[in-house]
Amino acid sequence: LTRQRTGRRVGASGTREAILAAARERFGEVGYDRATIRSIAAAVGVDPALVHHFFGPKDRLFAAAMRLPMVPSDVVDAALTFPGAAAMGAGVKASAGKVGAGTAGAGKAGAGGGMGGEAVASLGDHVVRTVLSVWDVDEVRSAFLGLLRSAVTSDEAAAMLREFATDAILGRIAQVAQAATGDGDGEYRAALAASQMLGLALARYVLRIAPIAQASNEELAAAIGPNLDRYLTGDIRPPTRPPGTSAPPE
Amino acid sequence: LTRQRTGRRVGASGTREAILAAARERFGEVGYDRATIRSIAAAVGVDPALVHHFFGPKDRLFAAAMRLPMVPSDVVDAALTFPGAAAMGAGVKASAGKVGAGTAGAGKAGAGGGMGGEAVASLGDHVVRTVLSVWDVDEVRSAFLGLLRSAVTSDEAAAMLREFATDAILGRIAQVAQAATGDGDGEYRAALAASQMLGLALARYVLRIAPIAQASNEELAAAIGPNLDRYLTGDIRPPTRPPGTSAPPE
Repeated sequence: LTRQRTGRRVGASGTREAILAAARERFGEVGYDRATIRSIAAAVGVDPALVHHFFGPKDRLFAAAMRLPMVPSDVVDAALTFPGAAAMGAGVKASAGKVGAGTAGAGKAGAGGGMGGEAVASLGDHVVRTVLSVWDVDEVRSAFLGLLRSAVTSDEAAAMLREFATDAILGRIAQVAQAATGDGDGEYRAALAASQMLGLALARYVLRIAPIAQASNEELAAAIGPNLDRYLTGDIRPPTRPPGTSAPPE
Repeated sequence: LTRQRTGRRVGASGTREAILAAARERFGEVGYDRATIRSIAAAVGVDPALVHHFFGPKDRLFAAAMRLPMVPSDVVDAALTFPGAAAMGAGVKASAGKVGAGTAGAGKAGAGGGMGGEAVASLGDHVVRTVLSVWDVDEVRSAFLGLLRSAVTSDEAAAMLREFATDAILGRIAQVAQAATGDGDGEYRAALAASQMLGLALARYVLRIAPIAQASNEELAAAIGPNLDRYLTGDIRPPTRPPGTSAPPE
């Protein structure tokens, strides 16, 4: 009698909340990587499949547990998906091995007015625009800065955020960079791009350095986008000496 | 009798400490900009000239009051002074107005092996190397991260750090960028470069994102240096439409 439909709905909602509470506790205690969905499910006494059914992959459970107003991987996927993506990927792939050719192409695509007055954004340009438009939303910016604050003040929180970012954000960017360059530097490239976006957030919203705090999203995309393009697809390694030549004198 | 030489030395040392304590209090209370040397001297009951005599300009007093193990403006001056500086400045000036020509030249100077096996570093390359070598020193890195932590957790500390950085760090970088490009974007360029270096510190020392935490200074200079060159001397503005043409359709 108590297990009628409405009763079950309340029960499901209670279970969801219990899972989120357990997840929050577990993520805080052992970090993102070691907090398995299995261990969170066990803490609540439900099947791991139910956790997945309710929340999806672990990064979405984390976002829900941390009460983030959006799922970061959705933002990353949106940032990495843009009209010129296919063209750029092809261009970069075709020129793989040629030093810097990929970036130059991407940069030109971003800077040029394009055909018929419509600018074709480069990948970096699109990433900056997408991320800034998400940070424009008060709750999203607050949640992001809250995570950043906790990471800067606590080693445990920093580890948790690093593990989460590696799984849900950097991995996706690394895949795109890797597909474009094929050089095995995907993770390094993703981390470099992330360092610029982290610094942008710090300068624009925390330190509020005037020229960056006052710049429009458009201006920042033009300034920063090509630099992200270089990190993601350009020549980022120290010059290699031709084989057989000796090291330069110190 | 008590005013013999040794006595005076103790007195001078006491005065120095009193000035530093007053400076610390004043900087914390009203921020960097509004804490004048005059007001700090008044709090201790000494002549402003004595404060200047002991500590030099305000940014050096701030560094001493905050117990920084080095004076940031010294690091910035070292970072901005490098063997290729004169050549780069001339190159950029000669090509001012030509879109991107300055950066391309600087990038090539940095990437090329140079004549006789000696690489000529670009400005950005030199900035990254200098700053990383300073951050390699434990006490310096700790002091820097301490300032960053306080800025991230307190609006007042953020304002103080912003005002200090604008006076002692960004202004110097802006001057160099302005001299090289002559385009009036010096402060914006300096802020962009600072955003990248702030993000690098966050990624390398706070979040410890693996590929950046493990990279050598050499590798990071090669990856990040050319991006700083672009911020400082390259084409960073959105493409301008030729006069008389209409805006592209949205």
